[in-house]
Amino acid sequence: MNPLTATNPFFSGLFADEEITDLFSQQATARAFLAFEIALSQSAGAAGLIAPELADRAAAAMADFKPDIAALLPDLSTDGMAVPGYVRQLKAHVGKDLAVAVHPGATSQDLIDTALALSIRAANDIFQHRLAALLLALDDLATTQAGHRLMGRTRMQAALPIDAAHRIATWRAPCARAQSRLAALRPEVEQLQFGGPVGDRQRSAPVADALATRLARHLDLQCPPASWHTERDGLALYAGWLSSLTGSLGKMGQDICLMVQQGVDDLAQSGGGTSSAMAHKQNPVTAELLVTLARFNAAQLPLMHQALVHEQERSGAMWTLEWMVLPTMMTCTGAALTRATQQVRAITRIGETPDAG
Amino acid sequence: MNPLTATNPFFSGLFADEEITDLFSQQATARAFLAFEIALSQSAGAAGLIAPELADRAAAAMADFKPDIAALLPDLSTDGMAVPGYVRQLKAHVGKDLAVAVHPGATSQDLIDTALALSIRAANDIFQHRLAALLLALDDLATTQAGHRLMGRTRMQAALPIDAAHRIATWRAPCARAQSRLAALRPEVEQLQFGGPVGDRQRSAPVADALATRLARHLDLQCPPASWHTERDGLALYAGWLSSLTGSLGKMGQDICLMVQQGVDDLAQSGGGTSSAMAHKQNPVTAELLVTLARFNAAQLPLMHQALVHEQERSGAMWTLEWMVLPTMMTCTGAALTRATQQVRAITRIGETPDAG
Amino acid sequence: MNPLTATNPFFSGLFADEEITDLFSQQATARAFLAFEIALSQSAGAAGLIAPELADRAAAAMADFKPDIAALLPDLSTDGMAVPGYVRQLKAHVGKDLAVAVHPGATSQDLIDTALALSIRAANDIFQHRLAALLLALDDLATTQAGHRLMGRTRMQAALPIDAAHRIATWRAPCARAQSRLAALRPEVEQLQFGGPVGDRQRSAPVADALATRLARHLDLQCPPASWHTERDGLALYAGWLSSLTGSLGKMGQDICLMVQQGVDDLAQSGGGTSSAMAHKQNPVTAELLVTLARFNAAQLPLMHQALVHEQERSGAMWTLEWMVLPTMMTCTGAALTRATQQVRAITRIGETPDAG
Amino acid sequence: MNPLTATNPFFSGLFADEEITDLFSQQATARAFLAFEIALSQSAGAAGLIAPELADRAAAAMADFKPDIAALLPDLSTDGMAVPGYVRQLKAHVGKDLAVAVHPGATSQDLIDTALALSIRAANDIFQHRLAALLLALDDLATTQAGHRLMGRTRMQAALPIDAAHRIATWRAPCARAQSRLAALRPEVEQLQFGGPVGDRQRSAPVADALATRLARHLDLQCPPASWHTERDGLALYAGWLSSLTGSLGKMGQDICLMVQQGVDDLAQSGGGTSSAMAHKQNPVTAELLVTLARFNAAQLPLMHQALVHEQERSGAMWTLEWMVLPTMMTCTGAALTRATQQVRAITRIGETPDAG
Repeated sequence: MNPLTATNPFFSGLFADEEITDLFSQQATARAFLAFEIALSQSAGAAGLIAPELADRAAAAMADFKPDIAALLPDLSTDGMAVPGYVRQLKAHVGKDLAVAVHPGATSQDLIDTALALSIRAANDIFQHRLAALLLALDDLATTQAGHRLMGRTRMQAALPIDAAHRIATWRAPCARAQSRLAALRPEVEQLQFGGPVGDRQRSAPVADALATRLARHLDLQCPPASWHTERDGLALYAGWLSSLTGSLGKMGQDICLMVQQGVDDLAQSGGGTSSAMAHKQNPVTAELLVTLARFNAAQLPLMHQALVHEQERSGAMWTLEWMVLPTMMTCTGAALTRATQQVRAITRIGETPDAG
Repeated sequence: MNPLTATNPFFSGLFADEEITDLFSQQATARAFLAFEIALSQSAGAAGLIAPELADRAAAAMADFKPDIAALLPDLSTDGMAVPGYVRQLKAHVGKDLAVAVHPGATSQDLIDTALALSIRAANDIFQHRLAALLLALDDLATTQAGHRLMGRTRMQAALPIDAAHRIATWRAPCARAQSRLAALRPEVEQLQFGGPVGDRQRSAPVADALATRLARHLDLQCPPASWHTERDGLALYAGWLSSLTGSLGKMGQDICLMVQQGVDDLAQSGGGTSSAMAHKQNPVTAELLVTLARFNAAQLPLMHQALVHEQERSGAMWTLEWMVLPTMMTCTGAALTRATQQVRAITRIGETPDAG
Repeated sequence: MNPLTATNPFFSGLFADEEITDLFSQQATARAFLAFEIALSQSAGAAGLIAPELADRAAAAMADFKPDIAALLPDLSTDGMAVPGYVRQLKAHVGKDLAVAVHPGATSQDLIDTALALSIRAANDIFQHRLAALLLALDDLATTQAGHRLMGRTRMQAALPIDAAHRIATWRAPCARAQSRLAALRPEVEQLQFGGPVGDRQRSAPVADALATRLARHLDLQCPPASWHTERDGLALYAGWLSSLTGSLGKMGQDICLMVQQGVDDLAQSGGGTSSAMAHKQNPVTAELLVTLARFNAAQLPLMHQALVHEQERSGAMWTLEWMVLPTMMTCTGAALTRATQQVRAITRIGETPDAG
Repeated sequence: MNPLTATNPFFSGLFADEEITDLFSQQATARAFLAFEIALSQSAGAAGLIAPELADRAAAAMADFKPDIAALLPDLSTDGMAVPGYVRQLKAHVGKDLAVAVHPGATSQDLIDTALALSIRAANDIFQHRLAALLLALDDLATTQAGHRLMGRTRMQAALPIDAAHRIATWRAPCARAQSRLAALRPEVEQLQFGGPVGDRQRSAPVADALATRLARHLDLQCPPASWHTERDGLALYAGWLSSLTGSLGKMGQDICLMVQQGVDDLAQSGGGTSSAMAHKQNPVTAELLVTLARFNAAQLPLMHQALVHEQERSGAMWTLEWMVLPTMMTCTGAALTRATQQVRAITRIGETPDAG
């Protein structure tokens, strides 16, 4: 919604993460919705909610469906989401006979939340990969700076000399923990959503759980024992993971901004930024951006927790709020990871060898 | 940066406000930058910082400048902003002889902050116009619902009967106050930024203030007595105005969600939303969205206050943070105002005539 | 609620502001409640809602009332506030005959919000006084540092030399604006609350407005044309003023932390803090605390805006939320103002005279 | 720091949790500091950092130490914490000969963070116990309401009937997950802090790790492989756990507020609150308070993430910020758990038996 950061090229390149934003594009949503609906019909057929033959024909008929996006728009604001219109189009596409085998036992939230889970899964693969690259860069840095010393500072004041390795280690450890925490957290958020209109799976009773199990397997997602329509604690904690990681990267960024100050000179790097007014300046733009992204993500986090107050069987207000927040936080996390590795790789010196002093 | 809300049509229509987002588009930025640079050269000529004849020729030469956006991108991440590259292009465009008359006494922040002030001014015109339309809609509603009674509720419990006019008045009064507060606030944010590299206007001394006065007049902005590079309190309070308004509209939205509950039935409206699973439902989507936008804007607000801790003569980290936040808040405010008027106009009944009970 | 910062002397002295916290003490609440009730009976008598003679006797009988605090506690959690129990005690104190002249036309919120307005008025007097002291200290500093020069820094990098006066001026200007903004804001928050059970003043009709006018005059508060039970925008903007001021003081604090770094040495001060481990250190504790208070207040601000979504005629949930937030923000602002003046007065040198370089 | 919620009995009872606040009292801090110092001397003796015999005598001499709190206060604001003064007193108490065996290899942060870890451990025991009680209450509720039906509501609109058990299950599941997540999280936050002046344990080299292992065992805390002076990610995630739990309890509270509305009547309970103006009202005060605490805790959370940007070897500003936030969040969580169980136990009916309709 922010044109500066999303579509205005005078600014957007600073914040962009194409790999992550692609996971939330129109194409990704269309792909996820269709994957869900096809797998749902197949699973409903296999579980006996609808006739298997009908299910197979419906699944086959859906395969080439392309939504008419323009036709979805008028209903979007009225319905608060695009799914009702999407399902109407999909049913029309397969024809009157097969329409009964489309969207069986499901509700809009099942589609949208499952599409989110698929995006989260793909993003988590990317995050794990980038975390590994960042840890490697930090390890390389520790190697090249081995034996270097700098003044440790507490309350921004010179305290006692430390090894460069010590400060690097304090940057690295939270990233390593983020990696193992993500592994533990993934099953909690890479989950199928399937609950039906009011979340109790009664519209697909008595085969609901069997159907859900198959559907999750089709989509390669975890199958929770019940829907999580109104239980958003997994997402809230996931947002905390995102913000905790960008916060730790922000600490590294802030340290670097302080280290490159003239008069401190604890760090040298290649490729600093220029100024429109002072040609001689070398600005720590990447390090600053890590601070910016940390502060930004931290401030988004409470919205995912305010959204836990999700009334009754579905809160339109709180669910919509998640859409405004979580993809942004994921994008910022992706951008911060990429920038952090660039930043670490750009460092040419931390502190100095003891005899240099 | 959030593709769901910015560019994914499955979702973006919910949050969109084209009029406001246009104020932050690539075209708007290009227009504002060029207006600033032309007016700057003219003002610098008139004030005697550069030769008037050179200034006129430079201004004329700039008139047809179109930035090469693709060429700006590589430097954006390095410099942390597009202005250094933009000014290089602009100087090349006017040629070596006139380059000295381009960007005299200015710095990147002068351009970007002034472009922001121009966007804010245009947005404020829109907000004032929409506030007037909303107040009119509320007045009309008070007229059509005159004499109606409903049960007043405190702590969500039935308390004592009230006039429909009373509840409508509690929705209206904060909007009327928002209108007069905005009028008072505008001079504090619709301000020229002009400070030069370190904000002290010394690069255009001793004619700096005269230059600034002329420049502000060219751009139809207020001229503050000094630059506000690091003094962001005006913007922070403006963000508070935005959030206060969306918060008050959120109160109206929440009330309406509660009033249309079956069993309460204090309000009837036309045009509710549908459900993919339950054809009979009429959902208060617009009212919910007002709650969503209120909660979202409230959570962005602290970032504009965290950004007040803007170190020394320019904080790249905190300035960049503003870019991520303020245009979004303005867009949400614009969307909320439009939705609020739609919502009020959709109401067909509040409470009932005393004899109907 | 935070024992560290409220009652644990190992920590509380850091954050304390006795003058402000006294405005929210048990004694202050008891004083304000009684002042309200006495003035209410008198005003109700004068306005003709109750018999003047009865009103006078009730007012006289209330004069020596002291609430039995222990007896209030059991009902506090049940009622969500102490007022119902307080009014029962007060009516019992004046006796059955006069009880009818106690609390006429009022509701709990009228007492609590008016007590808040009285505390805010007293705090604003303190804030104005402290702002004047801070501005004076900054003026004195500008005088003693006149002619000194230091390196201006943008993006934490050395840019161009500036006058010490320039940096001091960027600290001072937001404080001066805060002073004039507070003057403009005071009438919006130093307001009588009087609305009766559902906020429409119908319980004291038809003399409600006349009663309110007298009551406000008795208490020396503004008299708004209607109750503001559910319209909390004035408080939200006041919270923004508080946070904007602490944010600007935080900028000064952050600058000073950066200026006293070894290697930068742009500022010298008397009285830095010690370390349990390093006897030689001089820590910029006061400057750091200004940053802490800025970040803390900024984060509280959205709660006052979330609380704008105040449903129907009274939201117990959102009103209670304000009690958790606003007095804390006011205390932090008071503490920050006192610390800021101490900090400015402790500065012995900024930059240096040109010939010293 | 908020006198309303901390020490003003007109309000404080609403938010109080004596068991949790006691963990952050002056007495608790004094107890923890002394336990740390005694165990430190003993461990330093056993590890060979100081002479064992000296260590034993110092430990014995410390046993009856009582800090002179009044004497600590003057230095608190100067030093930014009470520890330097505390250690001076402690060394004076044991006498010049033994002073060398007091606080060996440690820094202020080691004491304060370890004291925090001890408080967190005790609080977690309480939380686990209260979570078990809440789950039991919810199980009992599910039993007594078995077979009851009510109208499921999505977007606050009647959707389809559901079992009472379904809604209760959506309240219960997040609490059960909170229980198992806490078990997993405890080792990450119930950790010894031991790093020395700049966090690298060099002041107790080469026996630092052995010393730390013994010290942790003495205090029954986890022993991390390095200090976590500047790595606050564990605390940030712990704060997320707190807020996630209060958010889920807030969802239950909001549901109950909606269910007891007249006209909805989906829930009956004993012991609602009274009104000073309307004797007939029964207010859902406890349910509202769960919403208040949820929204409050959510808003505190970003501060623990802003505090991750913890510069260099110690940030006075960010560390102090944690003191303002985390104990408050823990107290609110404790209060919310107690209130939630009270609330569940107060429910006498949800929905109705099918034949009752």
